Amino acid sequence: MRGADTALLIIDVINDLDFPGGEHVLPWASRMVERLAPFAARMRKAGVPVIYVNDNFNHWRSNFRDVYRHCTRAGSRGRGIVRALRPHATDYFVLKPKHSAFFATSLVPLLEHLGTKKLLMAGIATNLCVFFSAHDAHMLEYDITVLSDCCCAESDTDHDLALDQLQRFLGVRVCRADEVKRKGRFRRPAHPSKGSGRL
Amino acid sequence: MRGADTALLIIDVINDLDFPGGEHVLPWASRMVERLAPFAARMRKAGVPVIYVNDNFNHWRSNFRDVYRHCTRAGSRGRGIVRALRPHATDYFVLKPKHSAFFATSLVPLLEHLGTKKLLMAGIATNLCVFFSAHDAHMLEYDITVLSDCCCAESDTDHDLALDQLQRFLGVRVCRADEVKRKGRFRRPAHPSKGSGRL
Amino acid sequence: MRGADTALLIIDVINDLDFPGGEHVLPWASRMVERLAPFAARMRKAGVPVIYVNDNFNHWRSNFRDVYRHCTRAGSRGRGIVRALRPHATDYFVLKPKHSAFFATSLVPLLEHLGTKKLLMAGIATNLCVFFSAHDAHMLEYDITVLSDCCCAESDTDHDLALDQLQRFLGVRVCRADEVKRKGRFRRPAHPSKGSGRL
Amino acid sequence: MRGADTALLIIDVINDLDFPGGEHVLPWASRMVERLAPFAARMRKAGVPVIYVNDNFNHWRSNFRDVYRHCTRAGSRGRGIVRALRPHATDYFVLKPKHSAFFATSLVPLLEHLGTKKLLMAGIATNLCVFFSAHDAHMLEYDITVLSDCCCAESDTDHDLALDQLQRFLGVRVCRADEVKRKGRFRRPAHPSKGSGRL
Repeated sequence: MRGADTALLIIDVINDLDFPGGEHVLPWASRMVERLAPFAARMRKAGVPVIYVNDNFNHWRSNFRDVYRHCTRAGSRGRGIVRALRPHATDYFVLKPKHSAFFATSLVPLLEHLGTKKLLMAGIATNLCVFFSAHDAHMLEYDITVLSDCCCAESDTDHDLALDQLQRFLGVRVCRADEVKRKGRFRRPAHPSKGSGRL
Repeated sequence: MRGADTALLIIDVINDLDFPGGEHVLPWASRMVERLAPFAARMRKAGVPVIYVNDNFNHWRSNFRDVYRHCTRAGSRGRGIVRALRPHATDYFVLKPKHSAFFATSLVPLLEHLGTKKLLMAGIATNLCVFFSAHDAHMLEYDITVLSDCCCAESDTDHDLALDQLQRFLGVRVCRADEVKRKGRFRRPAHPSKGSGRL
Repeated sequence: MRGADTALLIIDVINDLDFPGGEHVLPWASRMVERLAPFAARMRKAGVPVIYVNDNFNHWRSNFRDVYRHCTRAGSRGRGIVRALRPHATDYFVLKPKHSAFFATSLVPLLEHLGTKKLLMAGIATNLCVFFSAHDAHMLEYDITVLSDCCCAESDTDHDLALDQLQRFLGVRVCRADEVKRKGRFRRPAHPSKGSGRL
Repeated sequence: MRGADTALLIIDVINDLDFPGGEHVLPWASRMVERLAPFAARMRKAGVPVIYVNDNFNHWRSNFRDVYRHCTRAGSRGRGIVRALRPHATDYFVLKPKHSAFFATSLVPLLEHLGTKKLLMAGIATNLCVFFSAHDAHMLEYDITVLSDCCCAESDTDHDLALDQLQRFLGVRVCRADEVKRKGRFRRPAHPSKGSGRL
């Protein structure tokens, strides 16, 4: 199957934004949705698996559907965002208990099952769960692309800083969604990945 | 809270028994249910968290409820077992992709969250998922009790052999459900745990 | 490079056999050495990486050389075994704190570094550290061969039982060293791997 | 034992600084040594375990002593630093294959063995291995203090930024070595730890 070595990870977008600073994330998240929703649709069409990896909000009894319901309840700050990014029946779901998508989750076995080698990463927040998930993906030696216009943070400073660090220190590819070709391949050569001398 | 350092792990009982040899497990599972269902009820009453850790049956899109529904469908060999062990609203659920309850799951963070130090283990099959989960629990240094009459396997030989190995080599406590006092404490001294010289 | 996707794991042979039952392991270990030493030599010649994964004996300050020295001290029960299996300069070493070669060690990154997909497993004891390491390797989806005449345990019952379980339940290939062709390939079709219905 | 719930982690100081940018780290590392060497001595005296967690420099056959020898060879840029921070016989060593001190290492079992709940963290570089190790320690729910004057990076901007992020987003305590009382306790109340809403 074509595109099968790539997967799109969408991190913590099923989110009520009910935390200190959540009000600052909201406008950036609204912009993010405009890019991410059509990009996810394009990936689905191209046969690229779409995987929602999401905080369990300390609701250990929950499943993904409960988290979705919780975050789209009347009065949830993130309601519009969540609805716009509603998962499809063919998408995959992984609940995570901590920042990283890889910590104490079934994400690695799922990626093995799918044959994934390359990750496209998107979601909230660029400098926290996306950032730390990208770092774990780096240690696990996945090929990583973070989609700059499909992530957001509390401020553009936090966002830009995180992307800069991912590029400089981990050699992560950072690009916009429209720079990703069909099937997760790239329109133009990736940024020359700077060596990440381990320190 | 009393009993708070103990949790009951119920492994792979939400199971359609639809595998080669499943027909041999069924009668043993039926006996197991008679002990395990009232024991779980007793633990809930005593405030001991009950955690279902269950195979995801390679349904990566599923959640626990879907697995329950799948295993109680008309014609499922395990239907009666599953219904008799139906989880309660206060129970916890962890889906696992492989044999061990600890491999690529959120079980450790959940146990940390609950403050669990001691595990009571039950489920299917004694010599596979219970056995390998007990081994991982041993490496993670939990205090482990496997409930001999709340586990089952394809044959009593497989069952007995697994329990014998857990006792001999890992120093695991093996006892019947009625030997566990309220709150997961023990009526009488545990079997003297034989040293597990690591080989 | 040919053979590059295979590695030989030699588990816990750097061992003073100073534990209850160690005296029973000794004669079986002496036989094991007669097969394992030439087999390891053959693998080295064929370019197959040889990896010693060994208990740290709770000497957290130690390194592999200290463990070797400790186990070859005057009066060590395992001295002859250890000397006969002395690692070569090109071999790799991993110290493990618990039974499994994979638990809290760098083995997976080392295998990734080497490009290993297939494991040949040998060492002490068939029913403990070899057994549990094979199980973890199974969950990590390596292709596994356990070399029946390059493993040993306290008794032939323990040894045979463990090999039987690995075949029956995990679909592990079990064969003698002389059935492995150069470069870790096989002279004849592997035993039909029985499905391992996860229970 | 007093001080027994605290350990000092010294990360990647056994380092030849032979990487692009290493020349910028050197002057900061020289300053770091002036604080870290006496602080480590003080901790040893107080019975606080000192654990060197160090890159294996892709030398999978090495042990800690080889890494030390390699980094103190004639002409090594880091020679002076490494010698000034020479481990003592009572210290512990953990080799790591990737950025984080916790990834594919025996650090967690060692900390369990020592009874450690609180980590004092120091080393090179503040914004890479110290930073990512602190993040993993956070997910593992250790109490974390990063010693601002016992860490360094390529620039003070990188250093300050990393410490700021650890405080803001992970609620990590950041202080100077002289603010740590005997036995790893604190002279004055820790900085109010800001909640780390998981995003």
